[in-house]
Amino acid sequence: MANEINYSASELADRLNGKLVGELTPRVTGVATLEEAVETSISWVGSASMLVRLAESKAAVVVVAQDAEVAEGRAVIRVDDPEMAACRLLELFAPPVDEVCVGVHESAVVHPTAVVEGAGIGPFVTVGAGAKIGAGTQLHAGVYVGGEAIIGRDCVLWPGVVVRERVVMGDRVIIHPNCTLGADGFGYIFREGCHKKVSQIGTVEIGDDVEIGANSTIDRAKSGVTRVGAGTKIDNLCQIAHNVQIGKHCILTGQTGIAGSTSIGDYVAFGGHGGASDHVNIGNQVQVGAMSVVTRDVADGEIVRGVPSVPNSQFLKEQAALRKLPELLKRVRELEKRLAAKS
Amino acid sequence: MANEINYSASELADRLNGKLVGELTPRVTGVATLEEAVETSISWVGSASMLVRLAESKAAVVVVAQDAEVAEGRAVIRVDDPEMAACRLLELFAPPVDEVCVGVHESAVVHPTAVVEGAGIGPFVTVGAGAKIGAGTQLHAGVYVGGEAIIGRDCVLWPGVVVRERVVMGDRVIIHPNCTLGADGFGYIFREGCHKKVSQIGTVEIGDDVEIGANSTIDRAKSGVTRVGAGTKIDNLCQIAHNVQIGKHCILTGQTGIAGSTSIGDYVAFGGHGGASDHVNIGNQVQVGAMSVVTRDVADGEIVRGVPSVPNSQFLKEQAALRKLPELLKRVRELEKRLAAKS
Amino acid sequence: MANEINYSASELADRLNGKLVGELTPRVTGVATLEEAVETSISWVGSASMLVRLAESKAAVVVVAQDAEVAEGRAVIRVDDPEMAACRLLELFAPPVDEVCVGVHESAVVHPTAVVEGAGIGPFVTVGAGAKIGAGTQLHAGVYVGGEAIIGRDCVLWPGVVVRERVVMGDRVIIHPNCTLGADGFGYIFREGCHKKVSQIGTVEIGDDVEIGANSTIDRAKSGVTRVGAGTKIDNLCQIAHNVQIGKHCILTGQTGIAGSTSIGDYVAFGGHGGASDHVNIGNQVQVGAMSVVTRDVADGEIVRGVPSVPNSQFLKEQAALRKLPELLKRVRELEKRLAAKS
Repeated sequence: MANEINYSASELADRLNGKLVGELTPRVTGVATLEEAVETSISWVGSASMLVRLAESKAAVVVVAQDAEVAEGRAVIRVDDPEMAACRLLELFAPPVDEVCVGVHESAVVHPTAVVEGAGIGPFVTVGAGAKIGAGTQLHAGVYVGGEAIIGRDCVLWPGVVVRERVVMGDRVIIHPNCTLGADGFGYIFREGCHKKVSQIGTVEIGDDVEIGANSTIDRAKSGVTRVGAGTKIDNLCQIAHNVQIGKHCILTGQTGIAGSTSIGDYVAFGGHGGASDHVNIGNQVQVGAMSVVTRDVADGEIVRGVPSVPNSQFLKEQAALRKLPELLKRVRELEKRLAAKS
Repeated sequence: MANEINYSASELADRLNGKLVGELTPRVTGVATLEEAVETSISWVGSASMLVRLAESKAAVVVVAQDAEVAEGRAVIRVDDPEMAACRLLELFAPPVDEVCVGVHESAVVHPTAVVEGAGIGPFVTVGAGAKIGAGTQLHAGVYVGGEAIIGRDCVLWPGVVVRERVVMGDRVIIHPNCTLGADGFGYIFREGCHKKVSQIGTVEIGDDVEIGANSTIDRAKSGVTRVGAGTKIDNLCQIAHNVQIGKHCILTGQTGIAGSTSIGDYVAFGGHGGASDHVNIGNQVQVGAMSVVTRDVADGEIVRGVPSVPNSQFLKEQAALRKLPELLKRVRELEKRLAAKS
Repeated sequence: MANEINYSASELADRLNGKLVGELTPRVTGVATLEEAVETSISWVGSASMLVRLAESKAAVVVVAQDAEVAEGRAVIRVDDPEMAACRLLELFAPPVDEVCVGVHESAVVHPTAVVEGAGIGPFVTVGAGAKIGAGTQLHAGVYVGGEAIIGRDCVLWPGVVVRERVVMGDRVIIHPNCTLGADGFGYIFREGCHKKVSQIGTVEIGDDVEIGANSTIDRAKSGVTRVGAGTKIDNLCQIAHNVQIGKHCILTGQTGIAGSTSIGDYVAFGGHGGASDHVNIGNQVQVGAMSVVTRDVADGEIVRGVPSVPNSQFLKEQAALRKLPELLKRVRELEKRLAAKS
């Protein structure tokens, strides 16, 4: 595919509300990191620590902070917030998207009582009875939306997403491929030697501006609601169990798992491949390390790590001590010998 | 959606085989936990420890054990088994399900040699040559069943489930969305600098009353069978590798992974986000902690935890000692100084 | 299904380029491990350590190394490489596959500008504008291939696979069901109290002979490419984040996760349920233990383990010492007492 998007350096300066300084440059054909840049790329220096890598870069023009010290002979665009400018550049150079669903594809099976006015419904999509899909929302190929589910405006559900009955979703939500929302919670009662299934009659509510990664799963509540607050971002292959309550603007990195009925505040971050036990309360602005599991309540603002998780400062001390443990064994043996010799 | 299900308190007492005692109540419109209950809810006290939370609840009526001590002024239904009664309540208040597949949807592609008599086949379902789907079983939208696969009676396969060729499944099995059964096991032989694929010609057998969570994967055997015993429940995002043998009535919590050829007895429970190495034998009624990995054989009835897993009592002692390890380092340093001073 | 494949022992010896020695045998109807073999099975002894299990096997004939010492009364086929011969046997006894897609199924939605000449396109498949599918490649039921994606020759994409726009794949690639390639990387910039989405305008490149397990996810790059080198094999439920670079002939066992921009050399092996942090450089031929996370650069050929990972020899020492830690605490307390008594 020929990506024919290109801009002059001064056009780019205008788009970034920045000031172009320095050398003449060729037309810019792409955005890349300093290392990956070619002679017609624009790149960026997001922080002072990146400045040292600038000299080696082939980039034609580089976005830098207002006060960055840059050697002569390099075209730069000075801006207030280079990281935000880099995000804008990614948008400017994004290849045209031809993946937009418009109207209702003839193969889709939309129940006559469903409301899909203004939504784009792709091939092989199923929409159940009484479901409502907001205007501007796209259901890509093979998406399934169960009965009475409500999906807001301007959402994107990528192929293979399954949203079961009665799940509710806000506006501008993005759900990546093969995600499952609203499957039954994992609930059984043990009687007469068997795990009998406990009906999971609740649902799932997803706030505005939530994004959920590919192949992640969010279970419906036993009763009541499993909730993901507005602005929260969930990565791929994460598992959110029944009746979990997640606040606003949280970050759950890949393969995080949150067990049933656990409650998480706002602005909480999970570092990936860990999670939390069931029925735990986690405050606001808590940070949980990668591959760590929270098993007790955590107060606002704490940083925790480990399995089971402990305060990060303690984790670091324990890890440092653990590195010395084999040697410590020897030292204690030595002490015992010496003391025995004295007796 | 207006959930118009409601009952009088005495109707509910009848349905629960319980005895209604106490105040007049409004018609009951839903079941909820003590905390989430509103003025028209029914709730339950499953154990004596929950009794303290009863006073604060708004519930109109509460299911309690025969001998529970409850303050006056609250309508209660006394039953023998409040937890089972709560399960029954969830069923009584479950919203009507309109997600049932009936007959064969006109869009489905069912091979002429497949047998689907009495099964419900949803939109965009594919059923391969020689497959047999039992009566009362529902294949929801987009399910794929490969050739010669056999699925029992009264199963539910939710949207996006993929069952590859020759997989065999019992009766009343529930498979949640986007689950994959019978993909090739992960087997290679290293020769001439390459990992050459080893054909995986076995299959998968799933017992009666098994439930498998969303986006979980169960691989087909290299030769022979990967087996999940009757009554076993597997949560979301679990991975069962080729030739694993899982017994009856086990519980595998979310994100558990069991490596190839490992054998697991009956009534074993995995706590989530952990699992077992390959070629390990795990006895009956073993409990494996969350985020723990079994790397050696485990005898019947053991409780193990950690990576690699050790007996739980030892794990707890080690964790307690680990918390004291940074301080221990100081104490040993102190001992060394004092002993040196004495020399 | 009656599996009617069978061979005489001498036919099998020919096919394996081996030499048949010993007893007359019935026609062989299947291949099985020593333990699972029945009276008409062929089995194999891959290594000297397996020889002790031979006596108990019911197998009619057993493939052994040229120099293996086998008791009289058992038909054997002597070969140079019994493990490779076993692989060949699995191929010889593989049930006939009737799951091949031929031509373009009438239900498939293939954009008029897509090129699918010589490929097999199953039911309910979607192929976007400008996509190219190589000859001999099979897209099974419900596969989605986005616009401008390029898929090589003789690939197999099993049902439910989602390949988003512009992803590029080599020849002979196998992608298992419900896998997601090319979903947006997990990238945000925190401004004004919100995580704003950073456009992910890069793509994914998959080398020749790669195999990717069921329900795994490989994200597209922010800019540039997320890369999986030729011959690398990725198991089920693995997560490869944006801009990760994986070399050739690596093995990533189930539930491995690699965080953003990490670089991995050739012939690296991950043991399952662990992974690597972001922006880490891992050399060639590195081995990472199960449930371990690499958080720092690792040099060629190292074996590492733990969270965070340390050299394996150190991990083993620390684990051994940790087992003794509760007792060590007591010993130090004893030393303190004795020293106090002396003062």
